[in-house]
Amino acid sequence: MRHEDLTIEGRNAVMEAFRAGKPIDKLFVLDGCQDGPVRSIIREAKKHDVILSFVTKERLDQMSETGRHQGVIAYGAAYEYAEVEDMLRLAEEKGEPPFLFLLDGIEDPHNLGAIIRTANLAGAHGVIVPKRRAAGLTATVAKASAGALNFTPVAKVTNLAVTIEELKKRGIWFVCADMGGETMYRMDLKGPIGLVIGNEGEGVSRLVREKCDMTAAIPMKGDIDSLNASVAAGVLAYEIVRQRMESGYPD
Amino acid sequence: MRHEDLTIEGRNAVMEAFRAGKPIDKLFVLDGCQDGPVRSIIREAKKHDVILSFVTKERLDQMSETGRHQGVIAYGAAYEYAEVEDMLRLAEEKGEPPFLFLLDGIEDPHNLGAIIRTANLAGAHGVIVPKRRAAGLTATVAKASAGALNFTPVAKVTNLAVTIEELKKRGIWFVCADMGGETMYRMDLKGPIGLVIGNEGEGVSRLVREKCDMTAAIPMKGDIDSLNASVAAGVLAYEIVRQRMESGYPD
Repeated sequence: MRHEDLTIEGRNAVMEAFRAGKPIDKLFVLDGCQDGPVRSIIREAKKHDVILSFVTKERLDQMSETGRHQGVIAYGAAYEYAEVEDMLRLAEEKGEPPFLFLLDGIEDPHNLGAIIRTANLAGAHGVIVPKRRAAGLTATVAKASAGALNFTPVAKVTNLAVTIEELKKRGIWFVCADMGGETMYRMDLKGPIGLVIGNEGEGVSRLVREKCDMTAAIPMKGDIDSLNASVAAGVLAYEIVRQRMESGYPD
Repeated sequence: MRHEDLTIEGRNAVMEAFRAGKPIDKLFVLDGCQDGPVRSIIREAKKHDVILSFVTKERLDQMSETGRHQGVIAYGAAYEYAEVEDMLRLAEEKGEPPFLFLLDGIEDPHNLGAIIRTANLAGAHGVIVPKRRAAGLTATVAKASAGALNFTPVAKVTNLAVTIEELKKRGIWFVCADMGGETMYRMDLKGPIGLVIGNEGEGVSRLVREKCDMTAAIPMKGDIDSLNASVAAGVLAYEIVRQRMESGYPD
């Protein structure tokens, strides 16, 4: 049996999974590994009655999907997809205007993980991905998210364009990232917002772009074409954070 | 013979190398591959009298260091390190206050490449790395930089703290990224600046941090600890870009 969606690898990812109360079934630790972070993880495992096994490096390497287990691998429940409604409720509970990420075709699990990590730290209420052309919530994604997958809901929708239509009726504005747009610093990105990020090669697809209210461009002052997708998502997300802070949300 | 620093893989990276006038010795193309981008690359190769070989997928896979050659691998001269002086001269030629990146211990080649890519697009004049604890300018770095390594000079210095001391005498201010600092939006990041980015695990080292004039923090509104290093570099770099644009540099 492959544990496609069930392995959590690396010290940060495992520790964050415990902290977030994720159901963990089993924990595998490198035999003889006794440093502080590993002992903290073992303490958490005992507190939660997790089955604990000390195994050889060869065994861990064999179990590892990412190749970077750092001496710990947990088998947990698969990461579950949330509903878009959960995100709107989360925003409401926090008393904040909704701030959503929509990823149009991010297929690289490292980029997906890094973007979920950014969404968490930028204070977004969730990440929406399409059913097709999207990486699943695998161990690699969880590891690249540095634990953010435990906190930031991710929803999978059949059709991004239709979801945008529906959310527009709920008062959310959509901005897509595209080189042809207006410089982001000059746009009003306050209020309820959905940030649409396209994939590296092709950008945001035409159908999705046409549904967006605004197109924001990151100023490009260099010789090459485009930023890495997760860097671009970070730069745009933090322009939204800056404008929200300016308009009075606490930092 | 291993071509550690000599292989350029992937369509974008190879095409950008030709465009930037990098000396390429040999080009290997997947036999039968005839789409537009590959034909453009072959045209460039013929224009530059490059030795051209059509090879099997197995051969390319075997030669590949990154595993993502996309049907083209070039053997070129290794990427050469620049001098810090070259960067200051570049800034002067452009009539801009110097804007440098200093990377304190970025060891992951994907992060290094993504940061060089960001430095290029944010209009920085160069990237400075220490001799120890830094990834070399390998094919993986070149690929992750999406060609930026051909345009943005990278210098290797013995001691980052000493380099900072020297550059301070030339009127450059240094800001380091650290969670304990002041929110970046409230700081004055205009003028000649060096942006110091630490590695993911440990941040900026104490000796380097103590040499910096300012410590800037990215607001963290989530549940986890830190952004991916290349995302953090992008967010900070673009706050500098924003402030420079505000103070009258053209976008």
